[in-house]
This record gives sequence, structure tokens and C-alpha cells, in this order.
Amino acid sequence: MGEYKVKGFGEFKVGDAAWARRTITEADLVNFAGISGDFNPIHTDEVFARETVFKGRIAHGSFTASFISNVLGNQLPGPGGIYVRQDLKFLAPVRVGDTITTRVEVIKKIEEKKRLILTTICSNQDQVQVLVGEAELLILAD
Amino acid sequence: MGEYKVKGFGEFKVGDAAWARRTITEADLVNFAGISGDFNPIHTDEVFARETVFKGRIAHGSFTASFISNVLGNQLPGPGGIYVRQDLKFLAPVRVGDTITTRVEVIKKIEEKKRLILTTICSNQDQVQVLVGEAELLILAD
Amino acid sequence: MGEYKVKGFGEFKVGDAAWARRTITEADLVNFAGISGDFNPIHTDEVFARETVFKGRIAHGSFTASFISNVLGNQLPGPGGIYVRQDLKFLAPVRVGDTITTRVEVIKKIEEKKRLILTTICSNQDQVQVLVGEAELLILAD
Amino acid sequence: MGEYKVKGFGEFKVGDAAWARRTITEADLVNFAGISGDFNPIHTDEVFARETVFKGRIAHGSFTASFISNVLGNQLPGPGGIYVRQDLKFLAPVRVGDTITTRVEVIKKIEEKKRLILTTICSNQDQVQVLVGEAELLILAD
Repeated sequence: MGEYKVKGFGEFKVGDAAWARRTITEADLVNFAGISGDFNPIHTDEVFARETVFKGRIAHGSFTASFISNVLGNQLPGPGGIYVRQDLKFLAPVRVGDTITTRVEVIKKIEEKKRLILTTICSNQDQVQVLVGEAELLILAD
Repeated sequence: MGEYKVKGFGEFKVGDAAWARRTITEADLVNFAGISGDFNPIHTDEVFARETVFKGRIAHGSFTASFISNVLGNQLPGPGGIYVRQDLKFLAPVRVGDTITTRVEVIKKIEEKKRLILTTICSNQDQVQVLVGEAELLILAD
Repeated sequence: MGEYKVKGFGEFKVGDAAWARRTITEADLVNFAGISGDFNPIHTDEVFARETVFKGRIAHGSFTASFISNVLGNQLPGPGGIYVRQDLKFLAPVRVGDTITTRVEVIKKIEEKKRLILTTICSNQDQVQVLVGEAELLILAD
Repeated sequence: MGEYKVKGFGEFKVGDAAWARRTITEADLVNFAGISGDFNPIHTDEVFARETVFKGRIAHGSFTASFISNVLGNQLPGPGGIYVRQDLKFLAPVRVGDTITTRVEVIKKIEEKKRLILTTICSNQDQVQVLVGEAELLILAD
């Protein structure tokens, strides 16, 4: 069997960055409602959503937040990192058809606790930041 | 057609609380990997996960976080609330078979900005807190 | 841990009603085909469906029927009710983009058997009834 | 492109029958909750369900009912049939690990309206009937 590349804490440095991008579909809204059980009508009822300030259905904020989990889990730090903390600020709505880029970057290392602090930013195709925040991960390997 | 009960800011008070509970299944790990795209082997590869400190696959932290969206979106504040901020601290692993209770409670109202601040706590069947944090929501209606 | 509000038979009365609403998406047709295994081309094959009286794909009748389960299971009677019987008449097609309101109302109580009889009606955004029927539930608690 | 075999009303006769069988998994409970939005704890919360008469989570009745849609839609009558009516009696719980056989049989033809009446029966691996009912379908082709 193959072996995952599990990086040690010493291999990460401030400035390390990674990203991913995907287009939001109506299926994402439906499926995330089903998985989370959050059927707030702003996500699932177009008649309701049209009458709100958003003028239509928007994606769950927690769905967009899951893209951060995607980049952290698959790339940076990838296997061997343990999610300790995530702060999220939801700045703008995400709609069906938007293409969201999620970018994470190591901004600090806490040596004694083997923690990485990363900025986590999701932006849409118009470079509007829709979600910003900070993640903290524990790196088990030295 | 029916009308949703959209509560105004004035109807909420400090101490308002709501909760939901569900049992975590292997399907949840698989489904959340699919919807987030986070295929970190700690969630999807039992051979890898067995060799870690967790001794087996654990649920995505962002999946547990989605239960907060569930309670906020369905119950408190429900329709008419806008998610502004969420802070998350992941305290303990969530495993297949765990039954997670998610509880939110209004701890503060910011009158001039029509914001609610809520504590958000997920605990397992042994009353171990697995995720704690704080949410901020904007209530559009007065 | 929290306790669900399990209502006793005596707490229900004729005229009690509840509803939910959601917009039908293409993802719903795909997902319901997958979960039921019903791949009748009227639901999954646009080339076939366009040539029929429906002029395009329609949702599974059993998918619409599941909205009744949603309202019964989540709201009325909610936790503690046991599904005993459901009659369904499919009156009009449901299409992608339709917004379906599902309304249930207690129309009769059978005291000696602790049963509730409810009308169950699904209507679209044009107030056309697409599915009507009757449900019977056993309420275990007194 | 291929052509579906769309049978005309005259091709069906009383006694025509079809069936399908599948094993219920925990994923089915999770996925059907997500698709229907019915998160009644009897389906999703093992701690709650253990304390009920069922002694554990059971499948949604509407999920079992979807197996009827499966057999009607895929086999008998298959393409060209229109679902008009379905009556359902839920007789016994369906649990994870059960293997459910769904059998439909034409019991009557209504010539002037081109309708088929079928019995629809779901039984488990112990030959216990869990769901019985009757379906009515309109056959468009002669």
C-alpha cells in the first residue's frame, strides 16, 4: 500500500499557501440541506428567498466553510493535521453559479504547541470576499 | 400559501435556547467527504486512521459545525436570521455511533446593530463537549 | 441531554395544522431516483419525457409524498407518532422549479385507538393541488 | 438512440407481477432523512429510538413506499404508466439490516379509463409484511 506524505511541524513555514476552486450548483444547496438538516427557507424555498434582501436562494454559510476543510484536509497541512479552531466571518452571499476560490496561508507558527495559524479566505469570481477567517491546526509529527 | 413565522429582533431575549440531536453514521462521513471534497484519510481511510491517535476514522469538524447551522436555521432564530460570524473550537473527536446534541443559547443582544450573540455547544452522549463556539446573527425584522 | 417534546394523544385536537414549503430542483429528481432506484425515464430522461404529455421530466410522486412524512415527522404530530396509514392521490405533475407547500391538518381523533386522522395536501405555487390524501397516526403517549 | 418498450393498456393482464429486493442500510436512513427533510428522531437519533417500542432507529415509511415506485417505474407497468393513486398501510417496522422484497401484481383492469389496479406488498426476510397497499396507474398507450 502507498504511504501518505505526513509532513512534520518543522516542514511548514509562514507563507505556505494552498487553494481550491469550485462552482456552486443548485444541487449543492439541496445536498447540504440534507446533510446538515438545515432547511431554512433562504436555502430551499425560492418563493420565500425572492422576497428577502438576497432576492433568491443562497448557499449555507457552513457549506462555504466546508471548502476550508477541503483545502486544509487535502493540501495544507493535509494528512496528520488536527483541526483545533476555526473563526468565520460571513461577508457576502454565495449563490448558485458563483465560482468560489478558497485560499489558506500559514501566517504564524506556535512552536511550543506545534500549532499552525492560517488565514482562510473564500472569494467569488468577482474577487469579492464572501468568507474570511482563521484556522488553527495541531501538527502531530515533528 | 403559508407564511413563515419570521420573528423580529424585539422578540428575542437573552436566555432563549434551542437544540437538536442526531446519531453519527458512517454514511455521514462519506457524504460529508463528498459534499466538501475533504478526503483527508482521517475521515475516509480506516487503515490510516487506525494508526493515528484517534484509533479510527472521525467525523469532519465542519460536519459537526453544520449542526449549529441546523439549529440556527431551523429554530433559533429560524427564518429571517442572517449568519454573520461563527467561532469554533474543536475539543474532542466525533466518531461513528456517537449521538451529538447541539445547543444554542442567546447570551447577548446588540441593539443598535440588531445582532444576536449565541453560544453554540455540541456534546456527545457522555456529556463531553466536542465543539464549542459562538455565533452572531443579524435579525432583519424589527 | 435535552428531551424531545413528545405530545400525548390528549394534547392534539381537530383543526391542528402544520405546513412546510420547498422548491423542487433537478437535484431532487436525481437524488430520489438514486435512493428509490426508480429510474423511470419520465424522471431521468429528458429526451423521452419531452415526447410525453408532460413535455419534460417530472418529479417522482413518492418524492412529493415524502414531504408529508417531513411535516408529520418534524411537526405534527412530531416525535412519538407512529405512521399507520397513508392514502395518496396524484393530481398534477410536479416539475423542476415548482415550489410545493405541504399542509397537514387533524380532521378526526379516534379515541379508543389513540389515532389521529389528518388530511395531507401538497399544492404548487399556483395553488394547484398536486397531491391529496389522508394520513393516520398512532400516538403512543396519553 | 434506443427506444423504450412502452406497453399499451391491452398488453397488461390481471396476474402480471414483478418484484425487487434490497437490504436496508444505515445510509438509507441518513439519506432519506436528507432528501425528505424528515429528521424525526425515530429515524436519526439512536438514544431516543432505543427508549421507544421499536428499541432502535427504524426506516422512514415513505422510504419503504419508494420501493413500490421502483417496481412500478422500472418494471410493471414501466415507461408509459402514470401514477394516479397509492394507498399504504404500514404494518411493521423496517430496520437496518432487513432485506425487503417488494411485489406488485395487477388485480384489476378498468377498461374505460385505461387504469391498472395493483396490490403492492413489501415483506422482510422473515416473510413479515411490513407495508401493504394498492396502486392505480393510467396507461396512456392503447
